[in-house]
Amino acid sequence: MRIARTIAEFRQLSAELLSPYESPSFGLVPTMGALHAGHAELARQAVVSESVVAASIFVNPLQFGDALDLERYPRDLDADAELLESVGVKLVFAPPLQEMYPQGEPQVRVSSGALGTVFEGASRPGHFDGALTVVAKLLHAGTPAMGSYRAYFGQKDAQQLALVRRMVSDLNFPVQIVGVPTVRAEDGLALSSRNRFLSAEQRDAALVLSRALRQLAAQADAQEPLDIDSAIALIESEPLVKLDYLEVVDQESFVPLAENCRHSPFRGKALALLAAQVGQVRLIDNMPLSVKAQ
Amino acid sequence: MRIARTIAEFRQLSAELLSPYESPSFGLVPTMGALHAGHAELARQAVVSESVVAASIFVNPLQFGDALDLERYPRDLDADAELLESVGVKLVFAPPLQEMYPQGEPQVRVSSGALGTVFEGASRPGHFDGALTVVAKLLHAGTPAMGSYRAYFGQKDAQQLALVRRMVSDLNFPVQIVGVPTVRAEDGLALSSRNRFLSAEQRDAALVLSRALRQLAAQADAQEPLDIDSAIALIESEPLVKLDYLEVVDQESFVPLAENCRHSPFRGKALALLAAQVGQVRLIDNMPLSVKAQ
Repeated sequence: MRIARTIAEFRQLSAELLSPYESPSFGLVPTMGALHAGHAELARQAVVSESVVAASIFVNPLQFGDALDLERYPRDLDADAELLESVGVKLVFAPPLQEMYPQGEPQVRVSSGALGTVFEGASRPGHFDGALTVVAKLLHAGTPAMGSYRAYFGQKDAQQLALVRRMVSDLNFPVQIVGVPTVRAEDGLALSSRNRFLSAEQRDAALVLSRALRQLAAQADAQEPLDIDSAIALIESEPLVKLDYLEVVDQESFVPLAENCRHSPFRGKALALLAAQVGQVRLIDNMPLSVKAQ
Repeated sequence: MRIARTIAEFRQLSAELLSPYESPSFGLVPTMGALHAGHAELARQAVVSESVVAASIFVNPLQFGDALDLERYPRDLDADAELLESVGVKLVFAPPLQEMYPQGEPQVRVSSGALGTVFEGASRPGHFDGALTVVAKLLHAGTPAMGSYRAYFGQKDAQQLALVRRMVSDLNFPVQIVGVPTVRAEDGLALSSRNRFLSAEQRDAALVLSRALRQLAAQADAQEPLDIDSAIALIESEPLVKLDYLEVVDQESFVPLAENCRHSPFRGKALALLAAQVGQVRLIDNMPLSVKAQ
Protein backbone atom coordinates (compact mmCIF):
# COMPACT_ATOMS: atom_id res chain seq x y z
CA MET A 1 0.00 0.00 0.00
CA ARG A 2 1.42 3.34 -1.08
CA ILE A 3 0.27 6.65 0.35
CA ALA A 4 0.58 9.79 -1.78
CA ARG A 5 0.44 13.20 -0.14
CA THR A 6 0.69 15.37 -3.25
CA ILE A 7 -1.08 15.27 -6.60
CA ALA A 8 2.26 14.91 -8.37
CA GLU A 9 3.10 11.86 -6.23
CA PHE A 10 -0.40 10.45 -6.75
CA ARG A 11 -0.07 10.71 -10.53
CA GLN A 12 3.42 9.25 -10.53
CA LEU A 13 2.52 6.30 -8.32
CA SER A 14 -0.65 5.50 -10.28
CA ALA A 15 1.35 5.58 -13.54
CA GLU A 16 3.90 3.18 -12.01
CA LEU A 17 1.20 0.82 -10.77
CA LEU A 18 -0.63 0.86 -14.13
CA SER A 19 2.45 0.44 -16.33
CA PRO A 20 2.74 -3.39 -16.14
CA TYR A 21 -0.81 -3.89 -17.49
CA GLU A 22 -1.39 -4.36 -21.18
CA SER A 23 -4.80 -2.69 -21.20
CA PRO A 24 -4.85 -0.94 -17.85
CA SER A 25 -7.92 0.39 -16.07
CA PHE A 26 -7.88 2.68 -13.09
CA GLY A 27 -10.53 2.98 -10.39
CA LEU A 28 -10.81 5.90 -8.01
CA VAL A 29 -12.81 5.72 -4.77
CA PRO A 30 -13.14 9.25 -3.37
CA THR A 31 -13.87 9.26 0.38
CA MET A 32 -13.68 11.53 3.40
CA GLY A 33 -12.12 8.73 5.46
CA ALA A 34 -13.69 7.33 8.64
CA LEU A 35 -14.26 4.28 6.51
CA HIS A 36 -16.83 1.60 7.27
CA ALA A 37 -18.13 -1.54 5.56
CA GLY A 38 -19.98 0.63 3.01
CA HIS A 39 -16.73 2.11 1.77
CA ALA A 40 -15.14 -1.34 1.87
CA GLU A 41 -17.87 -2.55 -0.47
CA LEU A 42 -17.23 0.39 -2.85
CA ALA A 43 -13.54 -0.43 -2.90
CA ARG A 44 -14.16 -4.15 -3.27
CA GLN A 45 -16.36 -3.64 -6.33
CA ALA A 46 -13.71 -1.37 -7.82
CA VAL A 47 -10.96 -3.94 -7.16
CA VAL A 48 -12.99 -6.61 -8.96
CA SER A 49 -13.29 -4.44 -12.09
CA GLU A 50 -10.04 -2.45 -12.36
CA SER A 51 -6.34 -3.19 -12.80
CA VAL A 52 -5.45 -0.69 -10.09
CA VAL A 53 -7.66 0.97 -7.49
CA ALA A 54 -6.82 4.09 -5.52
CA ALA A 55 -8.87 5.65 -2.75
CA SER A 56 -8.67 9.27 -1.79
CA ILE A 57 -9.14 10.40 1.81
CA PHE A 58 -9.79 14.08 2.25
CA VAL A 59 -12.17 15.87 4.59
CA ASN A 60 -13.24 18.76 2.39
CA PRO A 61 -13.94 21.96 4.36
CA LEU A 62 -15.66 23.48 1.31
CA GLN A 63 -18.67 21.22 1.70
CA PHE A 64 -19.20 21.79 5.42
CA GLY A 65 -21.43 24.73 6.25
CA ASP A 66 -21.02 24.12 9.96
CA ALA A 67 -17.51 24.56 11.41
CA LEU A 68 -18.36 22.31 14.36
CA ASP A 69 -19.53 19.51 12.05
CA LEU A 70 -16.21 19.79 10.18
CA GLU A 71 -14.20 19.88 13.39
CA ARG A 72 -15.70 16.73 14.82
CA TYR A 73 -15.84 14.77 11.57
CA PRO A 74 -13.98 11.54 12.48
CA ARG A 75 -10.43 11.05 11.12
CA ASP A 76 -8.31 7.89 11.41
CA LEU A 77 -5.90 7.44 8.51
CA ASP A 78 -4.19 4.34 9.89
CA ALA A 79 -7.41 2.40 10.32
CA ASP A 80 -8.64 3.62 6.94
CA ALA A 81 -5.46 2.54 5.14
CA GLU A 82 -5.62 -0.87 6.81
CA LEU A 83 -9.22 -1.44 5.72
CA LEU A 84 -8.44 -0.34 2.16
CA GLU A 85 -5.39 -2.56 1.94
CA SER A 86 -7.42 -5.54 3.17
CA VAL A 87 -9.76 -5.29 0.17
CA GLY A 88 -7.00 -4.83 -2.42
CA VAL A 89 -6.62 -1.06 -2.79
CA LYS A 90 -3.07 -0.35 -3.95
CA LEU A 91 -2.79 3.38 -3.47
CA VAL A 92 -4.18 5.99 -1.10
CA PHE A 93 -4.22 9.69 -1.90
CA ALA A 94 -4.38 11.55 1.43
CA PRO A 95 -3.47 15.17 0.72
CA PRO A 96 -3.05 17.79 3.44
CA LEU A 97 -5.33 20.83 3.23
CA GLN A 98 -2.45 22.89 1.85
CA GLU A 99 -2.08 20.58 -1.17
CA MET A 100 -5.75 20.83 -2.10
CA TYR A 101 -6.24 24.53 -1.34
CA PRO A 102 -2.78 26.10 -1.53
CA GLN A 103 -4.20 29.60 -1.95
CA GLY A 104 -7.07 29.19 0.48
CA GLU A 105 -10.58 28.86 -0.88
CA PRO A 106 -10.54 28.39 -4.67
CA GLN A 107 -11.88 31.23 -6.81
CA VAL A 108 -13.00 29.10 -9.70
CA ARG A 109 -15.50 26.48 -8.59
CA VAL A 110 -18.10 24.10 -9.86
CA SER A 111 -21.65 25.34 -9.44
CA SER A 112 -24.24 22.65 -9.06
CA GLY A 113 -27.30 24.39 -10.49
CA ALA A 114 -30.92 23.64 -9.64
CA LEU A 115 -30.33 20.08 -8.40
CA GLY A 116 -27.88 21.50 -5.87
CA THR A 117 -30.54 23.65 -4.19
CA VAL A 118 -33.18 21.07 -3.22
CA PHE A 119 -33.34 18.47 -0.42
CA GLU A 120 -29.81 18.28 1.05
CA GLY A 121 -28.94 21.45 -0.87
CA ALA A 122 -31.85 23.31 0.73
CA SER A 123 -30.77 22.21 4.20
CA ARG A 124 -27.07 22.79 3.55
CA PRO A 125 -26.62 25.85 1.29
CA GLY A 126 -23.38 25.65 -0.72
CA HIS A 127 -22.81 22.03 0.26
CA PHE A 128 -23.06 20.59 -3.24
CA ASP A 129 -21.01 23.36 -4.87
CA GLY A 130 -18.27 22.52 -2.37
CA ALA A 131 -18.68 18.78 -2.89
CA LEU A 132 -18.62 19.00 -6.70
CA THR A 133 -15.64 21.33 -6.60
CA VAL A 134 -13.58 18.83 -4.62
CA VAL A 135 -14.84 15.90 -6.68
CA ALA A 136 -13.72 17.76 -9.83
CA LYS A 137 -10.29 18.26 -8.24
CA LEU A 138 -10.04 14.61 -7.21
CA LEU A 139 -11.22 13.33 -10.60
CA HIS A 140 -8.56 15.49 -12.24
CA ALA A 141 -5.86 14.51 -9.77
CA GLY A 142 -6.71 10.86 -10.42
CA THR A 143 -6.92 11.00 -14.23
CA PRO A 144 -4.61 8.13 -15.19
CA ALA A 145 -1.79 8.65 -17.69
CA MET A 146 -3.10 5.65 -19.63
CA GLY A 147 -6.01 3.27 -19.86
CA SER A 148 -9.65 3.56 -18.86
CA TYR A 149 -10.91 5.44 -15.82
CA ARG A 150 -13.85 4.85 -13.51
CA ALA A 151 -14.79 6.48 -10.21
CA TYR A 152 -16.95 4.79 -7.57
CA PHE A 153 -19.54 6.53 -5.41
CA GLY A 154 -22.04 5.17 -2.89
CA GLN A 155 -25.77 5.33 -3.60
CA LYS A 156 -26.25 6.27 0.04
CA ASP A 157 -25.42 9.87 -0.91
CA ALA A 158 -27.95 9.70 -3.71
CA GLN A 159 -28.18 13.39 -4.48
CA GLN A 160 -24.40 13.73 -4.52
CA LEU A 161 -24.17 10.75 -6.89
CA ALA A 162 -26.82 12.25 -9.19
CA LEU A 163 -24.94 15.57 -9.19
CA VAL A 164 -21.58 13.92 -9.86
CA ARG A 165 -23.16 12.08 -12.82
CA ARG A 166 -24.64 15.36 -13.99
CA MET A 167 -21.29 17.17 -13.66
CA VAL A 168 -19.46 14.45 -15.54
CA SER A 169 -22.04 14.57 -18.31
CA ASP A 170 -22.50 18.37 -18.44
CA LEU A 171 -18.74 19.01 -18.40
CA ASN A 172 -17.65 15.88 -20.32
CA PHE A 173 -15.18 14.58 -17.75
CA PRO A 174 -13.29 11.64 -19.28
CA VAL A 175 -14.36 9.23 -16.55
CA GLN A 176 -17.18 6.79 -16.01
CA ILE A 177 -19.14 7.01 -12.76
CA VAL A 178 -20.18 3.81 -11.00
CA GLY A 179 -22.82 3.90 -8.26
CA VAL A 180 -22.63 1.20 -5.60
CA PRO A 181 -25.70 0.17 -3.53
CA THR A 182 -25.97 1.27 0.09
CA VAL A 183 -24.64 -1.18 2.66
CA ARG A 184 -26.85 -1.62 5.73
CA ALA A 185 -26.35 -3.00 9.20
CA GLU A 186 -28.32 -6.18 9.90
CA ASP A 187 -31.02 -4.16 11.58
CA GLY A 188 -31.44 -2.04 8.42
CA LEU A 189 -29.59 1.16 9.40
CA ALA A 190 -27.63 2.55 6.45
CA LEU A 191 -23.92 2.61 7.29
CA SER A 192 -22.55 6.10 7.81
CA SER A 193 -19.45 7.58 9.36
CA ARG A 194 -21.81 9.63 11.52
CA ASN A 195 -23.57 6.60 13.08
CA ARG A 196 -20.81 6.39 15.70
CA PHE A 197 -22.21 9.56 17.26
CA LEU A 198 -25.58 7.89 18.00
CA SER A 199 -26.33 6.59 21.50
CA ALA A 200 -27.77 3.07 21.69
CA GLU A 201 -31.21 4.56 22.24
CA GLN A 202 -30.88 6.98 19.34
CA ARG A 203 -29.65 4.20 17.09
CA ASP A 204 -32.72 2.12 17.93
CA ALA A 205 -34.93 5.08 17.18
CA ALA A 206 -33.17 5.70 13.85
CA LEU A 207 -34.28 2.29 12.60
CA VAL A 208 -37.65 3.83 11.85
CA LEU A 209 -36.02 5.54 8.84
CA SER A 210 -35.10 2.42 6.91
CA ARG A 211 -38.37 0.84 8.00
CA ALA A 212 -40.32 3.69 6.38
CA LEU A 213 -38.29 3.41 3.18
CA ARG A 214 -38.76 -0.36 3.11
CA GLN A 215 -42.49 0.12 3.48
CA LEU A 216 -42.51 2.28 0.32
CA ALA A 217 -40.23 -0.15 -1.52
CA ALA A 218 -42.61 -2.99 -0.69
CA GLN A 219 -45.57 -1.00 -2.03
CA ALA A 220 -43.63 -0.31 -5.24
CA ASP A 221 -42.69 -3.97 -5.57
CA ALA A 222 -46.33 -4.92 -5.14
CA GLN A 223 -47.35 -2.26 -7.69
CA GLU A 224 -49.51 -0.62 -5.08
CA PRO A 225 -50.01 3.13 -4.65
CA LEU A 226 -47.23 4.69 -2.59
CA ASP A 227 -48.48 5.68 0.84
CA ILE A 228 -46.02 8.45 1.59
CA ASP A 229 -48.20 9.94 4.32
CA SER A 230 -48.13 6.75 6.33
CA ALA A 231 -44.34 6.48 5.89
CA ILE A 232 -44.04 10.01 7.27
CA ALA A 233 -46.43 9.18 10.11
CA LEU A 234 -44.33 6.13 11.00
CA ILE A 235 -41.22 8.30 11.37
CA GLU A 236 -43.05 11.02 13.25
CA SER A 237 -44.27 8.44 15.75
CA GLU A 238 -40.66 8.16 16.97
CA PRO A 239 -40.03 11.04 19.40
CA LEU A 240 -36.19 10.92 19.13
CA VAL A 241 -36.31 11.39 15.34
CA LYS A 242 -37.04 14.77 13.76
CA LEU A 243 -37.89 14.28 10.09
CA ASP A 244 -36.55 16.92 7.70
CA TYR A 245 -37.99 15.54 4.46
CA LEU A 246 -39.27 12.32 2.96
CA GLU A 247 -40.11 12.36 -0.73
CA VAL A 248 -40.32 10.09 -3.77
CA VAL A 249 -38.41 11.59 -6.68
CA ASP A 250 -37.19 10.92 -10.19
CA GLN A 251 -33.80 9.18 -9.99
CA GLU A 252 -31.97 11.71 -12.15
CA SER A 253 -33.68 15.06 -11.75
CA PHE A 254 -34.89 14.62 -8.14
CA VAL A 255 -38.20 16.16 -9.19
CA PRO A 256 -40.89 14.76 -6.87
CA LEU A 257 -43.18 12.30 -8.60
CA ALA A 258 -46.59 13.64 -9.50
CA GLU A 259 -49.21 13.56 -6.79
CA ASN A 260 -51.14 10.79 -8.56
CA CYS A 261 -48.32 8.27 -8.00
CA ARG A 262 -49.43 8.30 -4.43
CA HIS A 263 -52.83 7.08 -5.43
CA SER A 264 -52.38 4.90 -8.51
CA PRO A 265 -50.21 1.76 -8.61
CA PHE A 266 -46.54 2.62 -8.90
CA ARG A 267 -44.71 1.93 -12.17
CA GLY A 268 -41.21 2.75 -13.30
CA LYS A 269 -38.08 3.78 -11.42
CA ALA A 270 -37.73 6.30 -8.66
CA LEU A 271 -36.02 6.99 -5.39
CA ALA A 272 -37.56 7.36 -1.95
CA LEU A 273 -35.29 9.64 0.03
CA LEU A 274 -35.26 11.21 3.45
CA ALA A 275 -33.25 13.19 5.94
CA ALA A 276 -33.77 13.36 9.67
CA GLN A 277 -32.13 14.72 12.77
CA VAL A 278 -31.45 12.23 15.57
CA GLY A 279 -29.98 14.04 18.55
CA GLN A 280 -26.99 15.97 17.20
CA VAL A 281 -26.69 13.75 14.13
CA ARG A 282 -28.18 14.41 10.72
CA LEU A 283 -28.90 11.16 8.91
CA ILE A 284 -29.86 10.66 5.26
CA ASP A 285 -31.08 7.51 3.61
CA ASN A 286 -32.78 6.43 0.40
CA MET A 287 -34.09 3.39 -1.39
CA PRO A 288 -34.58 2.80 -5.10
CA LEU A 289 -38.16 1.95 -5.97
CA SER A 290 -38.89 -0.15 -8.99
CA VAL A 291 -41.42 -2.58 -10.26
CA LYS A 292 -39.93 -6.05 -10.06
CA ALA A 293 -39.32 -7.87 -13.30
CA GLN A 294 -42.33 -10.15 -13.98
CA MET B 1 -6.80 16.64 -41.87
CA ARG B 2 -9.52 14.80 -39.98
CA ILE B 3 -12.69 16.47 -38.74
CA ALA B 4 -14.46 15.02 -35.70
CA ARG B 5 -18.08 15.95 -35.02
CA THR B 6 -18.55 14.07 -31.76
CA ILE B 7 -16.48 13.81 -28.60
CA ALA B 8 -16.24 10.03 -29.04
CA GLU B 9 -14.85 10.50 -32.56
CA PHE B 10 -12.49 13.22 -31.34
CA ARG B 11 -11.08 10.94 -28.65
CA GLN B 12 -10.76 8.00 -31.01
CA LEU B 13 -9.02 9.99 -33.74
CA SER B 14 -6.61 11.65 -31.32
CA ALA B 15 -5.72 8.25 -29.85
CA GLU B 16 -5.07 6.92 -33.37
CA LEU B 17 -2.91 9.90 -34.29
CA LEU B 18 -0.93 9.68 -31.02
CA SER B 19 -0.39 5.92 -31.07
CA PRO B 20 2.70 5.84 -33.35
CA TYR B 21 4.68 8.14 -31.04
CA GLU B 22 6.92 6.70 -28.38
CA SER B 23 6.42 9.57 -25.94
CA PRO B 24 3.44 11.35 -27.40
CA SER B 25 2.31 14.86 -26.55
CA PHE B 26 -1.00 16.38 -27.50
CA GLY B 27 -1.79 20.04 -28.08
CA LEU B 28 -5.29 21.49 -28.11
CA VAL B 29 -6.06 24.89 -29.61
CA PRO B 30 -9.61 25.85 -28.60
CA THR B 31 -11.16 28.44 -30.94
CA MET B 32 -14.51 29.84 -32.00
CA GLY B 33 -13.49 29.65 -35.66
CA ALA B 34 -13.32 32.67 -37.99
CA LEU B 35 -9.62 32.09 -37.79
CA HIS B 36 -7.01 34.71 -38.59
CA ALA B 37 -3.22 34.97 -38.42
CA GLY B 38 -3.39 35.18 -34.61
CA HIS B 39 -4.96 31.73 -34.44
CA ALA B 40 -2.48 30.49 -37.05
CA GLU B 41 0.34 31.59 -34.76
CA LEU B 42 -1.25 29.75 -31.80
CA ALA B 43 -1.51 26.59 -33.88
CA ARG B 44 1.99 26.99 -35.31
CA GLN B 45 3.53 27.24 -31.84
CA ALA B 46 1.58 24.17 -30.77
CA VAL B 47 2.72 22.22 -33.85
CA VAL B 48 6.35 23.05 -33.04
CA SER B 49 6.02 21.62 -29.52
CA GLU B 50 3.60 18.69 -29.76
CA SER B 51 3.43 15.32 -31.51
CA VAL B 52 -0.16 15.94 -32.55
CA VAL B 53 -2.18 19.16 -32.52
CA ALA B 54 -5.94 19.43 -32.68
CA ALA B 55 -7.98 22.62 -32.91
CA SER B 56 -11.55 22.89 -31.77
CA ILE B 57 -14.02 25.16 -33.53
CA PHE B 58 -17.19 25.88 -31.60
CA VAL B 59 -19.13 29.10 -31.25
CA ASN B 60 -20.30 28.80 -27.67
CA PRO B 61 -23.72 30.39 -27.07
CA LEU B 62 -23.17 30.21 -23.29
CA GLN B 63 -20.62 33.02 -23.40
CA PHE B 64 -22.67 35.42 -25.52
CA GLY B 65 -24.96 37.68 -23.53
CA ASP B 66 -26.24 39.31 -26.70
CA ALA B 67 -28.20 37.09 -29.10
CA LEU B 68 -27.41 39.40 -32.02
CA ASP B 69 -23.68 39.23 -31.30
CA LEU B 70 -23.94 35.42 -31.31
CA GLU B 71 -26.01 35.39 -34.49
CA ARG B 72 -23.59 37.48 -36.49
CA TYR B 73 -20.40 35.93 -35.14
CA PRO B 74 -18.57 34.88 -38.34
CA ARG B 75 -18.48 31.17 -39.25
CA ASP B 76 -16.50 29.57 -42.09
CA LEU B 77 -15.45 25.98 -41.36
CA ASP B 78 -13.89 25.30 -44.78
CA ALA B 79 -11.57 28.31 -44.65
CA ASP B 80 -10.74 27.55 -41.01
CA ALA B 81 -9.86 23.92 -41.75
CA GLU B 82 -7.68 24.98 -44.67
CA LEU B 83 -5.74 27.50 -42.56
CA LEU B 84 -5.26 24.93 -39.78
CA GLU B 85 -4.09 22.26 -42.19
CA SER B 86 -1.58 24.69 -43.72
CA VAL B 87 0.20 25.09 -40.38
CA GLY B 88 0.24 21.38 -39.54
CA VAL B 89 -2.88 20.80 -37.43
CA LYS B 90 -3.91 17.15 -37.85
CA LEU B 91 -7.36 17.11 -36.34
CA VAL B 92 -10.29 19.50 -36.03
CA PHE B 93 -13.05 19.04 -33.49
CA ALA B 94 -16.10 20.90 -34.81
CA PRO B 95 -19.08 19.68 -32.82
CA PRO B 96 -22.66 20.72 -33.57
CA LEU B 97 -24.54 22.49 -30.76
CA GLN B 98 -26.44 19.29 -30.00
CA GLU B 99 -23.20 17.43 -29.23
CA MET B 100 -22.00 20.05 -26.76
CA TYR B 101 -25.34 20.80 -25.11
CA PRO B 102 -27.52 17.74 -25.73
CA GLN B 103 -29.92 18.66 -22.93
CA GLY B 104 -29.93 22.39 -23.59
CA GLU B 105 -28.07 24.66 -21.19
CA PRO B 106 -25.96 22.64 -18.76
CA GLN B 107 -27.04 22.58 -15.12
CA VAL B 108 -23.60 22.05 -13.65
CA ARG B 109 -21.23 24.81 -14.69
CA VAL B 110 -17.94 26.38 -13.84
CA SER B 111 -18.23 29.59 -11.87
CA SER B 112 -15.43 32.05 -12.39
CA GLY B 113 -15.44 33.85 -9.03
CA ALA B 114 -14.22 37.38 -8.41
CA LEU B 115 -11.93 37.61 -11.44
CA GLY B 116 -14.93 36.84 -13.62
CA THR B 117 -16.82 39.94 -12.48
CA VAL B 118 -14.38 42.75 -13.32
CA PHE B 119 -13.40 44.41 -16.65
CA GLU B 120 -14.86 42.18 -19.40
CA GLY B 121 -16.90 40.40 -16.74
CA ALA B 122 -18.43 43.67 -15.58
CA SER B 123 -19.38 44.61 -19.15
CA ARG B 124 -20.56 41.13 -20.06
CA PRO B 125 -22.23 39.49 -17.03
CA GLY B 126 -22.02 35.68 -17.15
CA HIS B 127 -19.54 35.76 -20.04
CA PHE B 128 -16.67 34.15 -18.19
CA ASP B 129 -18.81 31.51 -16.49
CA GLY B 130 -19.97 30.51 -19.96
CA ALA B 131 -16.45 30.65 -21.38
CA LEU B 132 -14.90 28.59 -18.56
CA THR B 133 -17.73 26.06 -18.77
CA VAL B 134 -17.07 25.41 -22.45
CA VAL B 135 -13.29 25.44 -21.94
CA ALA B 136 -13.72 22.80 -19.22
CA LYS B 137 -15.80 20.71 -21.65
CA LEU B 138 -13.24 21.11 -24.44
CA LEU B 139 -10.28 20.34 -22.15
CA HIS B 140 -12.09 17.18 -21.04
CA ALA B 141 -13.09 16.22 -24.56
CA GLY B 142 -9.47 16.65 -25.64
CA THR B 143 -7.81 14.81 -22.74
CA PRO B 144 -5.54 12.39 -24.60
CA ALA B 145 -5.59 8.68 -23.83
CA MET B 146 -1.81 8.81 -23.43
CA GLY B 147 1.09 11.20 -23.18
CA SER B 148 1.35 14.81 -22.09
CA TYR B 149 -1.29 17.47 -22.70
CA ARG B 150 -1.06 21.19 -23.33
CA ALA B 151 -3.69 23.69 -24.41
CA TYR B 152 -2.89 26.95 -26.21
CA PHE B 153 -4.65 30.27 -25.67
CA GLY B 154 -3.99 33.73 -27.03
CA GLN B 155 -2.82 36.53 -24.74
CA LYS B 156 -5.16 38.84 -26.65
CA ASP B 157 -7.99 37.56 -24.44
CA ALA B 158 -5.89 38.25 -21.37
CA GLN B 159 -8.63 37.96 -18.77
CA GLN B 160 -9.89 34.72 -20.28
CA LEU B 161 -6.34 33.34 -20.26
CA ALA B 162 -5.87 34.35 -16.62
CA LEU B 163 -9.18 32.71 -15.72
CA VAL B 164 -8.37 29.52 -17.64
CA ARG B 165 -5.04 29.34 -15.77
CA ARG B 166 -6.89 29.90 -12.52
CA MET B 167 -9.46 27.22 -13.34
CA VAL B 168 -6.78 24.71 -14.26
CA SER B 169 -4.93 25.45 -11.03
CA ASP B 170 -7.98 25.69 -8.72
CA LEU B 171 -9.55 22.52 -10.14
CA ASN B 172 -6.30 20.64 -10.90
CA PHE B 173 -7.04 19.90 -14.56
CA PRO B 174 -4.32 17.53 -15.87
CA VAL B 175 -3.25 19.93 -18.61
CA GLN B 176 -0.67 22.66 -18.99
CA ILE B 177 -1.82 26.04 -20.31
CA VAL B 178 0.38 27.91 -22.81
CA GLY B 179 -0.25 31.59 -23.52
CA VAL B 180 0.78 32.88 -26.93
CA PRO B 181 1.51 36.60 -27.55
CA THR B 182 -0.99 38.71 -29.46
CA VAL B 183 -0.45 38.98 -33.19
CA ARG B 184 -0.89 42.50 -34.61
CA ALA B 185 -1.41 43.91 -38.06
CA GLU B 186 1.49 46.01 -39.35
CA ASP B 187 -0.29 49.17 -38.24
CA GLY B 188 -0.54 47.81 -34.69
CA LEU B 189 -4.20 46.71 -34.53
CA ALA B 190 -4.53 43.46 -32.58
CA LEU B 191 -5.96 40.75 -34.83
CA SER B 192 -9.53 39.80 -33.99
CA SER B 193 -12.33 37.96 -35.73
CA ARG B 194 -14.41 41.07 -35.12
CA ASN B 195 -12.08 43.44 -37.04
CA ARG B 196 -13.84 42.48 -40.28
CA PHE B 197 -16.87 44.44 -39.08
CA LEU B 198 -14.89 47.72 -38.97
CA SER B 199 -15.19 50.22 -41.81
CA ALA B 200 -11.90 51.62 -43.15
CA GLU B 201 -12.50 54.81 -41.22
CA GLN B 202 -13.32 52.93 -37.98
CA ARG B 203 -10.26 50.75 -38.42
CA ASP B 204 -8.07 53.83 -38.72
CA ALA B 205 -9.64 55.29 -35.60
CA ALA B 206 -9.12 52.01 -33.70
CA LEU B 207 -5.35 52.35 -34.09
CA VAL B 208 -5.42 54.79 -31.20
CA LEU B 209 -5.94 51.80 -28.90
CA SER B 210 -2.64 50.05 -29.58
CA ARG B 211 -0.93 53.44 -29.69
CA ALA B 212 -2.10 54.19 -26.15
CA LEU B 213 -0.93 50.79 -24.94
CA ARG B 214 2.41 51.20 -26.64
CA GLN B 215 2.83 54.57 -24.97
CA LEU B 216 2.45 52.88 -21.55
CA ALA B 217 4.76 50.02 -22.55
CA ALA B 218 7.43 52.55 -23.55
CA GLN B 219 7.12 54.30 -20.19
CA ALA B 220 7.49 50.95 -18.41
CA ASP B 221 10.49 50.04 -20.54
CA ALA B 222 12.06 53.38 -19.67
CA GLN B 223 11.24 52.85 -15.98
CA GLU B 224 9.23 56.04 -16.01
CA PRO B 225 5.99 56.62 -14.10
CA LEU B 226 2.99 55.31 -16.04
CA ASP B 227 0.92 58.17 -17.39
CA ILE B 228 -2.44 56.44 -17.60
CA ASP B 229 -4.36 59.70 -17.78
CA SER B 230 -2.61 60.75 -20.94
CA ALA B 231 -3.16 57.31 -22.50
CA ILE B 232 -6.87 57.72 -21.74
CA ALA B 233 -6.83 61.26 -23.14
CA LEU B 234 -5.21 60.01 -26.33
CA ILE B 235 -8.03 57.52 -26.88
CA GLU B 236 -10.72 60.02 -25.95
CA SER B 237 -9.34 62.41 -28.55
CA GLU B 238 -10.63 60.00 -31.22
CA PRO B 239 -14.35 60.69 -31.72
CA LEU B 240 -15.14 57.29 -33.35
CA VAL B 241 -13.78 55.38 -30.32
CA LYS B 242 -15.74 55.10 -27.09
CA LEU B 243 -13.43 53.90 -24.32
CA ASP B 244 -14.94 51.46 -21.84
CA TYR B 245 -11.91 50.99 -19.57
CA LEU B 246 -8.14 51.35 -19.61
CA GLU B 247 -6.27 50.11 -16.57
CA VAL B 248 -2.91 48.74 -15.50
CA VAL B 249 -3.36 45.54 -13.49
CA ASP B 250 -1.51 42.67 -11.88
CA GLN B 251 -1.03 39.93 -14.49
CA GLU B 252 -2.67 37.19 -12.45
CA SER B 253 -5.24 38.80 -10.18
CA PHE B 254 -6.20 41.72 -12.45
CA VAL B 255 -6.16 43.96 -9.38
CA PRO B 256 -5.29 47.50 -10.56
CA LEU B 257 -1.81 48.58 -9.58
CA ALA B 258 -1.65 50.97 -6.67
CA GLU B 259 -2.12 54.63 -7.43
CA ASN B 260 1.55 55.36 -6.74
CA CYS B 261 2.67 53.32 -9.78
CA ARG B 262 1.33 56.17 -11.80
CA HIS B 263 3.76 58.52 -10.14
CA SER B 264 6.88 56.56 -9.31
CA PRO B 265 8.99 54.72 -11.88
CA PHE B 266 7.42 51.44 -12.89
CA ARG B 267 9.00 48.17 -11.72
CA GLY B 268 7.88 44.58 -12.10
CA LYS B 269 5.33 42.90 -14.34
CA ALA B 270 1.85 44.04 -15.17
CA LEU B 271 -0.68 44.28 -17.93
CA ALA B 272 -2.15 47.39 -19.49
CA LEU B 273 -5.60 46.46 -20.74
CA LEU B 274 -8.50 48.22 -22.37
CA ALA B 275 -11.84 47.79 -24.04
CA ALA B 276 -13.56 50.20 -26.38
CA GLN B 277 -16.55 50.40 -28.62
CA VAL B 278 -15.89 51.35 -32.25
CA GLY B 279 -19.20 51.65 -34.08
CA GLN B 280 -21.01 48.35 -33.47
CA VAL B 281 -17.81 46.54 -32.60
CA ARG B 282 -16.41 45.99 -29.14
CA LEU B 283 -12.62 45.69 -29.21
CA ILE B 284 -10.29 44.59 -26.44
CA ASP B 285 -6.53 44.81 -26.36
CA ASN B 286 -3.70 44.58 -23.84
CA MET B 287 0.03 44.80 -23.58
CA PRO B 288 2.38 43.29 -21.00
CA LEU B 289 4.46 45.87 -19.19
CA SER B 290 7.81 44.93 -17.80
CA VAL B 291 11.13 46.44 -16.98
CA LYS B 292 13.62 45.35 -19.59
CA ALA B 293 16.46 43.15 -18.46
CA GLN B 294 19.48 45.33 -17.70
